[in-house]
Amino acid sequence: MKTVTVPLGARSYSIFIGDGMLGDRQCWRDIIAGRRTMIVTDEIVAEHHLGRLTATLGDDCATCVLAAGESRKTLATAGEVWNRLMEARFARDDVLIALGGGVVGDIAGFAAACYQRGIACIQAPTTLIAQVDSAVGGKTGVNHPLGKNMIGAFHQPAAVVADPGTLATLPDTEYRAGLAEVIKYGVILDADFFAWLEANIDALLEQEHDALAHAIARSCEIKAAIVAADEHEQGQRALLNLGHTFGHAIETGLGHGRWRHGEAVAAGMVMAADFARRLGWLKHDDARRVRDLVVRTALPDWAPAELDAERLLTLMASDKKVRGGRLRLVLPRAIGRAEATADFDHELLRRMLKEGPAE
Amino acid sequence: MKTVTVPLGARSYSIFIGDGMLGDRQCWRDIIAGRRTMIVTDEIVAEHHLGRLTATLGDDCATCVLAAGESRKTLATAGEVWNRLMEARFARDDVLIALGGGVVGDIAGFAAACYQRGIACIQAPTTLIAQVDSAVGGKTGVNHPLGKNMIGAFHQPAAVVADPGTLATLPDTEYRAGLAEVIKYGVILDADFFAWLEANIDALLEQEHDALAHAIARSCEIKAAIVAADEHEQGQRALLNLGHTFGHAIETGLGHGRWRHGEAVAAGMVMAADFARRLGWLKHDDARRVRDLVVRTALPDWAPAELDAERLLTLMASDKKVRGGRLRLVLPRAIGRAEATADFDHELLRRMLKEGPAE
Repeated sequence: MKTVTVPLGARSYSIFIGDGMLGDRQCWRDIIAGRRTMIVTDEIVAEHHLGRLTATLGDDCATCVLAAGESRKTLATAGEVWNRLMEARFARDDVLIALGGGVVGDIAGFAAACYQRGIACIQAPTTLIAQVDSAVGGKTGVNHPLGKNMIGAFHQPAAVVADPGTLATLPDTEYRAGLAEVIKYGVILDADFFAWLEANIDALLEQEHDALAHAIARSCEIKAAIVAADEHEQGQRALLNLGHTFGHAIETGLGHGRWRHGEAVAAGMVMAADFARRLGWLKHDDARRVRDLVVRTALPDWAPAELDAERLLTLMASDKKVRGGRLRLVLPRAIGRAEATADFDHELLRRMLKEGPAE
Repeated sequence: MKTVTVPLGARSYSIFIGDGMLGDRQCWRDIIAGRRTMIVTDEIVAEHHLGRLTATLGDDCATCVLAAGESRKTLATAGEVWNRLMEARFARDDVLIALGGGVVGDIAGFAAACYQRGIACIQAPTTLIAQVDSAVGGKTGVNHPLGKNMIGAFHQPAAVVADPGTLATLPDTEYRAGLAEVIKYGVILDADFFAWLEANIDALLEQEHDALAHAIARSCEIKAAIVAADEHEQGQRALLNLGHTFGHAIETGLGHGRWRHGEAVAAGMVMAADFARRLGWLKHDDARRVRDLVVRTALPDWAPAELDAERLLTLMASDKKVRGGRLRLVLPRAIGRAEATADFDHELLRRMLKEGPAE
């Protein structure tokens, strides 16, 4: 078992990473410390993993099984969780456990954040993207009909328990989409990790145990460091959005659900790297390395042709990371070093989106 | 104008108290600092005060007028505010202004807490209870069908602007109910303030300017000190619940709305003082002083006869301040010094509730 600490003073917590963690009675007993628990999960995850976790936690653990899917990430679904908590008379010192992917983690985290003004939430992520990204850092929330993640809260988990064994039940495309966020950590902050990924991508695609545990732990370490430096996204945390402004434009332009979030982020990263190359920020070879690793992971490396330059620019301009009317992009200066900037040549951006990827 | 600071590090803020503050352009300009604003209020408050505040803030200020009443303090109403914010494309650095009593402040504060994971909220309380209590301290939330204030967040305001001039439009019973919370501050933490209230209660009942401004400012200072010491109600903040465990039992037993919250708190304070006297905590004379001040304010000084001892005990046992199955009460050791305790003679409590007030 690997342990990563997220150092946030009174809100510090540990991320426990290891195969079989969902069945580790002692670890869970230490985390729960005798409190009442309710597991929030969805129908699909419940089928694969709920039985094992309830067997670990014992009979007195309540469960709340939601319908699956991003379309259910709504205030009404958070309301279902609150109804269950009220009916079961949960109190301020009881605990919610979010067992599932990013959607379950976001809903359950938000429900915990607002139930009696905040109860503890343990994140037990069962997808790669949740294990390396969404379960760590305290961003929770639900979608509004007019925008994603618009209703939410910062609510740090009490602990994160990541069992890479759960990833074996993921569809291959979902698993690979998660690797996009892993690659992102290398590009924004850790050149050595990026090189390690280049050397180990085949082992990761095979879900080889040691490689996978290392990739998850290193990703969590990088995210923990960024969150510790900037819990509420006033500055450095924005680096985590590398590829996301392009990516959100792709997701919105195609209609949410056609591409997975990680797929759009992968394409967005390659586009950010190519734009950084055109700005003279990034060496040609480094832009190519980003693209090659994305391609080896069998992820898309550019926005789909059906979204033309003008459409993408319009979508990017309405991104919520636009502040004071200026579009900000996170771009790599080198592999392992990214920066946010609003000071770039917009015509060059338009030209890149018109011309498409460099060959 | 009086200014009270709530010292909470990065979340510190000022409370501005003064007649005519709703029309003070310079003060509002300094607070708003060029940001977009939306005023959230209700139909009744809008009729009395919205025109003046919009005249002060200028034309570009958006408004969201809710139906009035505690029955509207629901998740659905918070949803109305979120819809307006989304439609008007409000962003993270924009500002909500809560203009109204406790219900408006709680809903708008909660809406601000969760909109894009938290935007600034300025509280502009227009009732006495909101000016001395609910607008200060960051407790926000809405009711669940199974319990009051069950869905919410701690979200400190960016500023509080209290204009005692707005109290002239309050029904007299509503104003007097607010005085219950003012008296409470004297009982829990400030014997001198309690003595000042005894000397000035007639001036306060007449809404004499200087007396009223002093009472509001001193109440805010005491609340600010308690909130600064215990922002998330882990300990000392519980003292603010003096009279509330009895009071909530009365409100719930009668059905919410029959007694005002402040009326129930007034009765609860007298009952807490009488119980403290029976326990030997409080001198007979001091218990009588609490009761006399409540009576001079024309507030109820005991639970209504229709709620018998067993019913009150049952209701108190289901109060959310019951932790680990033990009922905790806040009781005065002296005027100006209260303590929370779970260690008291339950039979003595039952006997007091059966016998009723001491004569």
